[in-house]
Amino acid sequence: MTRKLVDNASIHTPVDHGRPAAGPHMGELLRIERGAMLIENGLVARIGDSDEVRAGLDQRTVDEVIDAGGRCLVPGFVDPHTHLCFVSPREEEFALRLTGAAYLDILRQGGGILNSVTAVRACPEEELYRLTRDRALSALAHGTTTVEIKSGYGLDTDSELKMLRVIERVGRSTPLDVVATFLGAHAVPPEYQGRADAYVDLMIDDMLPRVAALGLARQCDIFCEQGVFSIAQGRRLLAAAKSLGFAVKIHADEVHDLGGAGLAAEVAALSADHLLAAGDPGIDGLAAAGVVATLLPATAYSLRKPYARARHMLERGVALALASDCNPGSSYSESMPFVIGLAVLQMGLSPAEALTAATLNGAYALGIADRVGSLAPGRQADFLLLDGKTPAILAFHAGVSPVDAVYKRGELVARP
Amino acid sequence: MTRKLVDNASIHTPVDHGRPAAGPHMGELLRIERGAMLIENGLVARIGDSDEVRAGLDQRTVDEVIDAGGRCLVPGFVDPHTHLCFVSPREEEFALRLTGAAYLDILRQGGGILNSVTAVRACPEEELYRLTRDRALSALAHGTTTVEIKSGYGLDTDSELKMLRVIERVGRSTPLDVVATFLGAHAVPPEYQGRADAYVDLMIDDMLPRVAALGLARQCDIFCEQGVFSIAQGRRLLAAAKSLGFAVKIHADEVHDLGGAGLAAEVAALSADHLLAAGDPGIDGLAAAGVVATLLPATAYSLRKPYARARHMLERGVALALASDCNPGSSYSESMPFVIGLAVLQMGLSPAEALTAATLNGAYALGIADRVGSLAPGRQADFLLLDGKTPAILAFHAGVSPVDAVYKRGELVARP
Repeated sequence: MTRKLVDNASIHTPVDHGRPAAGPHMGELLRIERGAMLIENGLVARIGDSDEVRAGLDQRTVDEVIDAGGRCLVPGFVDPHTHLCFVSPREEEFALRLTGAAYLDILRQGGGILNSVTAVRACPEEELYRLTRDRALSALAHGTTTVEIKSGYGLDTDSELKMLRVIERVGRSTPLDVVATFLGAHAVPPEYQGRADAYVDLMIDDMLPRVAALGLARQCDIFCEQGVFSIAQGRRLLAAAKSLGFAVKIHADEVHDLGGAGLAAEVAALSADHLLAAGDPGIDGLAAAGVVATLLPATAYSLRKPYARARHMLERGVALALASDCNPGSSYSESMPFVIGLAVLQMGLSPAEALTAATLNGAYALGIADRVGSLAPGRQADFLLLDGKTPAILAFHAGVSPVDAVYKRGELVARP
Repeated sequence: MTRKLVDNASIHTPVDHGRPAAGPHMGELLRIERGAMLIENGLVARIGDSDEVRAGLDQRTVDEVIDAGGRCLVPGFVDPHTHLCFVSPREEEFALRLTGAAYLDILRQGGGILNSVTAVRACPEEELYRLTRDRALSALAHGTTTVEIKSGYGLDTDSELKMLRVIERVGRSTPLDVVATFLGAHAVPPEYQGRADAYVDLMIDDMLPRVAALGLARQCDIFCEQGVFSIAQGRRLLAAAKSLGFAVKIHADEVHDLGGAGLAAEVAALSADHLLAAGDPGIDGLAAAGVVATLLPATAYSLRKPYARARHMLERGVALALASDCNPGSSYSESMPFVIGLAVLQMGLSPAEALTAATLNGAYALGIADRVGSLAPGRQADFLLLDGKTPAILAFHAGVSPVDAVYKRGELVARP
């Protein structure tokens, strides 16, 4: 058995009460000013006040003592919504958007997501793996210890499977826990323009069964939006996915309030994501159904749109998660400290609420809160040391990551 | 003689026409798609299309060839407004501000700047040096090759001189060019509460002459604001400073439109800084006098205030510079890529305008555009390689620095 003791840390962690922390509970952290954490075989064994954790501990049985030097210790970030598997960022399109072009217009003209689809289809699997791995390692250096990665730039069976194999391999070959999500329904592929229902049939009849059989993803997602997929198509696809054992989630109400949040509640999705345009009925539906609202402030920042109404959602009892949405177009950022900074300074979350959203509730949005997202006996010892005294430093050190050291299952895996 | 050739670079640099680039000229860059730059003894010898630069060049006389691999090459950033010399960021005050406390109220209650004054006065010079140097090196890793650092957390003669010695030593001991600015007039010290004029006398009679005699700064700055220093006090201090040979600049119209911009024009300041509240008469005065307006968007971001009216200023013919304002309270960020991102996405500058503001016009705000801020024969070979094809990547890769390599006088000094 390997035993490690982290000592002299200012510990801040959400506490898991068996459900996503919602509304006023999001700001409730366990705070231990002079704290320690005992780690056994990569799992948290004890956590608490330094004197208490050390009491009765035979120091000779401890293999390593990590002195946090009074720094803030938080759980590693769980980023529950990314599109990290792509070929290259769409720099030209960004410049175009700055001059006023709208995101959905670019998509309609064959740019945007479809541009990335062309690149992914043509990209050799090995190169796609290397590119995706390097981005995942950059996210790790910014404190993300668990990351969700979606397919969705393939949009045909072979290319979607190629992406999912790459995503699986990144999970195997890096310290990160990687959760794969099948997002064949990211856009209507060029071959099916005007025949979205036929493409939904293809996903239901061919893609989903093969992804399930190969065990390449346990989650299924869909982009419900004007000009992309309708609520009815979403209902049909997600019902099929659930019957195959997939957990489901939805890109909901990003540009127009189509009722994506309502569908998420109806199908008991793990999360509804984006929600910039979500109205009160949708928001109340999420709260009532206990569906996590995953907010993506870096996307609003990059697209220069109003942010999702985070405080309003909190007041209505919703559980919020934060994600980077890292992708080659609308949010090219793998930095969760940056996302947390936006959540605090632009959406009005407190640092404690933002930390809960970026850890525990992110884990709930992936259905893995029993393993990651908080620090308590039995949980994975995935944690960060920050160059500051409290989680506020994540927002305060603006545009610069204060993550000093990243530990995954008790092992130092990045010192940025 | 040491000769280096940078080849295969997508070069983007402002061109110096002997005055700050103003209004529509700010977007005019020299762009060379397949460019090269010949460096001799740390200075640019030739810059242009790769074939032209190589023509007639005897490869055997080149000591090193740097292959940029098609990446974007830009001048190193010139950050013309920082308070990098401090003890520790005011994390508690940041948390307080999030709950609604106003910046000037905190200052009035002895917090804010005065909190940092207490810390700097008590800090041993060696420790203050180490802290300042480490921050300067972090700025360097984010692409800043020339930085201005102000005094202003001493507010008595000995402590101000201590800060200026530290700043001078950081310039000597790091690759950065450091420009020191005397900012004794950052706040009214506790000993002079209610007697600001007497403190102005002290600066004029004691501090300024000693700073000048010791050669520790060539610039003098003042914070003109309600409850800090008046315009009349600013006029008096800056006149004295100019008579001793100091160039002058002003923290102008940050919270209230007192007429700081007008004073800057009147005294032919190098720059007027902040300007969040500046009205049209002040703005027009800057344009007419050719005074650089140094904008600090990370401060507006951190304080959650409306940004300075950058596009409006551009339309009225003002020359804009961008700076981090890195300080322990209102803008804890040393990242110029983050500042450029805010300028583009929040203030509406084009990537080309923002690059000019962060390089050439920053150099004009410090009076050193003949040496740094643009890449042309005779200028210092201070340049960056970016992980992208154009300067747009600085805004697009949100919250993450795309600076791959930092060169100062032709030497690789940081590879983040």
